[in-house]
Amino acid sequence: MCLMVKCAICVHLIYSDIVQKCREELKAIRETNPDLKPTLAIIQVCLCVIDEILRLNEDSRVHGIFLHLPQSFLSRSVRNAIKPQKDVDGIYFFCNTLLDAPLIGKMAVLVGVEGPLKATIQCLLQNNGMMVQTCQWSSKHLQKQFLCVVCYFQQQRAMLLCFRRDIWLNHKSDIEISRAQTPKPISQLAQEIGLLPEELEAYGNTKAKVHLSLLNRFQHQPNGKYVLVAGITPTPLGEGKSTVTTGLVQALSAHLKLNSFACLRQPSQGPTFGVKGGAAGGGYAQVIPMEEFNLHLTGDIHAITAANNLVAAAIDARILHEATQSDKALYRRLVPSVNGVRCFSPIQMARLQRLGINESDPSDLTPEEVRAFVRLDLDPEKVTWQRVVDTNDRFLRKITVGQANTEKGHARQTQFDIAVASEIMAILALTDGLADMRARLGRMVVGSNRNGQPITADDLGVTGALAVLMKDAIKPTLMQTLEGTPVFVHAGPFANIAHGNSSVLADKLALKLVGEEGFVVTEAGFGADIGMEKFFNIKCRTSGLKPDVVVLVATVRALKMHGGGPNVYTFHIFTTFYIYCIFERLQLVYHYGCSNLKKQIQIAHLFGVPVVVALNVFKTDTQAEIELVCRIAEASGASAAVQCHHWSRGGRGSVELAQAVKKVASQKNNFQFLYNLQDSIVEKIRTIAQKVYGADDIELSPEAQAKIDYYNQQGFGALPICMAKTHLSLSHMPEKKGVPTGFILPIRDIRASIGAGFIYPLVGTMSTMPGLPTRPCFYDIDLDPVTEEIKGLF
Amino acid sequence: MCLMVKCAICVHLIYSDIVQKCREELKAIRETNPDLKPTLAIIQVCLCVIDEILRLNEDSRVHGIFLHLPQSFLSRSVRNAIKPQKDVDGIYFFCNTLLDAPLIGKMAVLVGVEGPLKATIQCLLQNNGMMVQTCQWSSKHLQKQFLCVVCYFQQQRAMLLCFRRDIWLNHKSDIEISRAQTPKPISQLAQEIGLLPEELEAYGNTKAKVHLSLLNRFQHQPNGKYVLVAGITPTPLGEGKSTVTTGLVQALSAHLKLNSFACLRQPSQGPTFGVKGGAAGGGYAQVIPMEEFNLHLTGDIHAITAANNLVAAAIDARILHEATQSDKALYRRLVPSVNGVRCFSPIQMARLQRLGINESDPSDLTPEEVRAFVRLDLDPEKVTWQRVVDTNDRFLRKITVGQANTEKGHARQTQFDIAVASEIMAILALTDGLADMRARLGRMVVGSNRNGQPITADDLGVTGALAVLMKDAIKPTLMQTLEGTPVFVHAGPFANIAHGNSSVLADKLALKLVGEEGFVVTEAGFGADIGMEKFFNIKCRTSGLKPDVVVLVATVRALKMHGGGPNVYTFHIFTTFYIYCIFERLQLVYHYGCSNLKKQIQIAHLFGVPVVVALNVFKTDTQAEIELVCRIAEASGASAAVQCHHWSRGGRGSVELAQAVKKVASQKNNFQFLYNLQDSIVEKIRTIAQKVYGADDIELSPEAQAKIDYYNQQGFGALPICMAKTHLSLSHMPEKKGVPTGFILPIRDIRASIGAGFIYPLVGTMSTMPGLPTRPCFYDIDLDPVTEEIKGLF
Repeated sequence: MCLMVKCAICVHLIYSDIVQKCREELKAIRETNPDLKPTLAIIQVCLCVIDEILRLNEDSRVHGIFLHLPQSFLSRSVRNAIKPQKDVDGIYFFCNTLLDAPLIGKMAVLVGVEGPLKATIQCLLQNNGMMVQTCQWSSKHLQKQFLCVVCYFQQQRAMLLCFRRDIWLNHKSDIEISRAQTPKPISQLAQEIGLLPEELEAYGNTKAKVHLSLLNRFQHQPNGKYVLVAGITPTPLGEGKSTVTTGLVQALSAHLKLNSFACLRQPSQGPTFGVKGGAAGGGYAQVIPMEEFNLHLTGDIHAITAANNLVAAAIDARILHEATQSDKALYRRLVPSVNGVRCFSPIQMARLQRLGINESDPSDLTPEEVRAFVRLDLDPEKVTWQRVVDTNDRFLRKITVGQANTEKGHARQTQFDIAVASEIMAILALTDGLADMRARLGRMVVGSNRNGQPITADDLGVTGALAVLMKDAIKPTLMQTLEGTPVFVHAGPFANIAHGNSSVLADKLALKLVGEEGFVVTEAGFGADIGMEKFFNIKCRTSGLKPDVVVLVATVRALKMHGGGPNVYTFHIFTTFYIYCIFERLQLVYHYGCSNLKKQIQIAHLFGVPVVVALNVFKTDTQAEIELVCRIAEASGASAAVQCHHWSRGGRGSVELAQAVKKVASQKNNFQFLYNLQDSIVEKIRTIAQKVYGADDIELSPEAQAKIDYYNQQGFGALPICMAKTHLSLSHMPEKKGVPTGFILPIRDIRASIGAGFIYPLVGTMSTMPGLPTRPCFYDIDLDPVTEEIKGLF
Repeated sequence: MCLMVKCAICVHLIYSDIVQKCREELKAIRETNPDLKPTLAIIQVCLCVIDEILRLNEDSRVHGIFLHLPQSFLSRSVRNAIKPQKDVDGIYFFCNTLLDAPLIGKMAVLVGVEGPLKATIQCLLQNNGMMVQTCQWSSKHLQKQFLCVVCYFQQQRAMLLCFRRDIWLNHKSDIEISRAQTPKPISQLAQEIGLLPEELEAYGNTKAKVHLSLLNRFQHQPNGKYVLVAGITPTPLGEGKSTVTTGLVQALSAHLKLNSFACLRQPSQGPTFGVKGGAAGGGYAQVIPMEEFNLHLTGDIHAITAANNLVAAAIDARILHEATQSDKALYRRLVPSVNGVRCFSPIQMARLQRLGINESDPSDLTPEEVRAFVRLDLDPEKVTWQRVVDTNDRFLRKITVGQANTEKGHARQTQFDIAVASEIMAILALTDGLADMRARLGRMVVGSNRNGQPITADDLGVTGALAVLMKDAIKPTLMQTLEGTPVFVHAGPFANIAHGNSSVLADKLALKLVGEEGFVVTEAGFGADIGMEKFFNIKCRTSGLKPDVVVLVATVRALKMHGGGPNVYTFHIFTTFYIYCIFERLQLVYHYGCSNLKKQIQIAHLFGVPVVVALNVFKTDTQAEIELVCRIAEASGASAAVQCHHWSRGGRGSVELAQAVKKVASQKNNFQFLYNLQDSIVEKIRTIAQKVYGADDIELSPEAQAKIDYYNQQGFGALPICMAKTHLSLSHMPEKKGVPTGFILPIRDIRASIGAGFIYPLVGTMSTMPGLPTRPCFYDIDLDPVTEEIKGLF
């Protein structure tokens, strides 16, 4: 009889259903009691509604109810029938007019007689609960908006699924939830968490850059607890690490009254307009305003794009100029006589020193020295630097540039990568300050010369300009969660083809700001085998920070897939199957699926860090599945395994997780790296392949072997390893789910990001430029020119 | 004997010179007066210094003096010898210690005995005058920093030129002047000019976006006076329109006490790191902080790049998807069944309407209708949309994309343009609000299908996403001049290949903010034949605004070039000749050079708008030249012609110009367009060619003629014309200076920017992507990691 409604037709259908049932009841009552007065008959009908409510109260799959009944059906007894439920946040009771919305309990019942349901729900969104909590920061937590999550299923499953999907799309998208919340002024948030006004650069009212000088001011302040959120091997839809991160800090701050900070990565605009949509979290565990988070933010990725492409333009222009000019002409132009005076710029002096030339007067160089100085002699075939663009533009995967007549036949083949895969993004993520960033930018190797020597950004003379372009990007951006707790957004995603962790600087600033008892929750991309491994071996090694707990996010959906369920493709029919159907496949989950979870827990234990498993519960999960997964996780060595309902309930839905994290973080751990930097490159790769991925061994292509020899010879051997591997499997084969064994990991090629500071083996076929699908997200995205509201961003 | 010094060697040289002279004097004195005491001898030597100072005081070319003398040479009589000079702003007198710097008059004498001059000058920079003025807005004008402009020349010209050049580069760059001034908080400026806090979105402390809602609030407020700054045909170095604009508002605000606003264009980062450097004005007529102005600003150009390239990615992906999928498959993907329900998105409904299909249920379309709907059938050869990047990357002038295997052989040749040449930039400049911008973005034609029908952004389904990407860019950015007066920065440059005017919205907002008696000074790119013509015929037609005065900027340098002097190339030897040498070439200037000035005045008169000529005075100009140019300008019909010294003196140097502008603006004018939109495309082009450029006629290539026929057939005939023509000559031939005659203007090709709303003929060979020189500016640009100060940006 209930009651999931979306459009007039559905309402009518269900309403008729109830009315029909009521009429039958009424008819039966009247037949047995011909003298009964009409009011009593109505009471009887209400009782029938109450019966249905009581039944729903007991159904674990029901998070809330929409009632769409005639006014006369509404009575105190109906109201009283509704009881607090373990997984329902709150309730409004709408009477005749939609604006009359007293908070009556912990569950929402909408009764709108004639009004369209959309208006009803919008009205619900506008009526906030009045919960205000304070914690140590004396933060004023944002009021929480409640929204029923309806998940009741009847026999007519298909029909009801359709209703739910529509509601999902039309009535409570992430952007609508985000927009319904008014963020507090960013300056207020900054003040609450102890930032000084001069340490803040506001970008509008909801975003601000935070100055690095804070690190000096807080240099004697002990760090807070450091929590990493990682995941099991995910489906292409993601398993909700960002929502878990956000929900966890909401729970720690607003409910456990502990200072806490989330450190997230800025999403790429490519996927935002392509397939994936935004990355601000979702539901009631979001960073707001989500459109600011998902679009330009404070311009960091744009700055990276500009810096990256300035290097690329400098490379090709230099190749052309060297090819078309004599040594003398090049020297005259590179060290011009300005009113009779010639001198080297500081960056040219640095290059002379690297060349072993100790002259400072340009006229003192021998012709050989001039030649060495002016000719980078870049081998066009050996240029490794790519252009980037923050758009999913598949036609730029392989291109030929320089075909205009003005480039005199110096065409060459190259490619664009997605902007976040730029080495400059990795530098932003790993640097500890301006001086270090400038030095790393200068060390970036862009290719090699015809003698096989590496050529750097410093050689191109572009280092200072890059640092200037990146001077603002180096400052983390402060935003807030839906409950008004602080978030740093800094550095970028793509842990498969890049390093894909949030920035060292954001983590360091946050660890100071939360204080010794506080918590910083930072996120590593994709499965623990990729993002977490790089977090420990690269990021922690660089930063010197020691993690206290790993939160490992799992979903029943992904475990089912690992257990042999259909593979999940975005927008594929089976996706709908996973998202929108309730079905219990304990067999699948148990048989094989949890082996992936178990393996990922073991990986974290390799580093000596305890694990809390966070099961991100979806409406389609059954209680039996949830309990089974938690039981297996704890049996597999997790210090705790808890279910999380942050998506539908915000911080309150993650209180159990927060308590577990708090408890585990207080225990001592024995953090250690997986390999020593002094191990050979091959040894380091093999260690990761065997211990983390479960491979029998690795296999190097001749090209990879040659590169390794070259890097060893150049003295790059002692760098950590940043594997470029699919995130969809522990192995290099995306289709191998669960815990693949008995495979040899093929290293196709190997690169070096000397500025970022890692060696970068390519496993299998990894594309560094996504494409647009036939129907990209942008079809649904629009801007209302009057209200300036964005539609369709999710 | 004086005294222009830069480095130890020069100092020593000149010092020796003086000492030598003094020794000779002393010797002579001693010989004639053997009993004379040493102190008296020194006084005698000082008198010799005084004589030299007095001589310098009378030299009109001398703006200031640096004395580098032994301490013993310093005396009250030396100090007293220095007198106020007509073109010198102020003076510090440095005694033994460099920090002891009393303000003693209107001329600076540095006496640093042992300290290096660089330190002396830095110290000078740090000692500000204390002038504070208020005007109607009750603005607190920023204190002004004085700096001596040294321009004394001895016989040894070459040697002295060298000193000046070095000082220019090392000691008082634009960025140093900019940095030496502390801007007032942008929120304070906003309050001073009557903005409400909720109308402002700060981006840090020195930049803010201003909400368009202001236009509603001020809808009944009369506009202020509207002043356009244009120029004569320029040299490649520019003649200083931005500095004149900035100096003029500084003069109007701080000195004439009139509310005034400058509207400037955001510079492209390509030239900033290439050849040109920044575009914030220069010297003491700058927008500050100049590095913020010249770098990312508030991200408008980045947003344009992202939007432009999303369209490009959508085009190529669509061509690929159509080529590789059946109608049915395309339809299934474009209108997917989501849980059994299929519906068109609003933008798809709009496309159906354009196709004349009135169904709203996807299942009701006939196979023919499905085919028409799903197939844009873009002809890869007829795609006119280009990708863009805000980098001078010449290797992207002609490229082949889509060469990866994943693109299945659909490679095609295309190109990147510099980002500011994007049609989206023109839309930003011409739009009057969000709704209009969204509509224009949707109308953009990206190519045509195989039947020759135009395909738009709306057809690609990308309009809403573009509007979302541009939602912040549409708001003008508020900054300030060096004297603390308000500036809007909005839209982009490149009036040769684009429309190249600042935005209609910025002008409209500013016209309201200054009030009826106030002044808005807006800038049009390059010479009046290009930027001004487009300002009148396109921008004013679109905005409905009526200009009151044209300020036409001229330089003696450019007029010399037009008069037959050597051509000016950037960094060419002759450039040095123009900048750093004093030479009077009255003959050249008179004979031919001023004809260009005269012609540009006449062009403004074609539109019925009075002209004030602003002669931007350089140190190398002689008084005779300056007077001659002003005389000729007035004889040619200019309402006034005045010299401007804003570069060295700030607003005070442009007071005469401000007074002239105020006077002329109060007169009635008869503004009119040059052509009617209803004229045929050919007629409109011919009118511009003949009346503005002075061509005998135009000549259309067959391709251009075919396009015109096509545009007429498509109903695009009634749009205004945006000529793409070199800015270096009134004609299409950059080398033809002065006023070329007897030429036929060749129209090579013609394009249509339907979204921006103009027809776009290409004259001669215009490149839409600049390149990097052998030694780009970036060699000198650097960031101090400790102070965070930027070096080398100019």
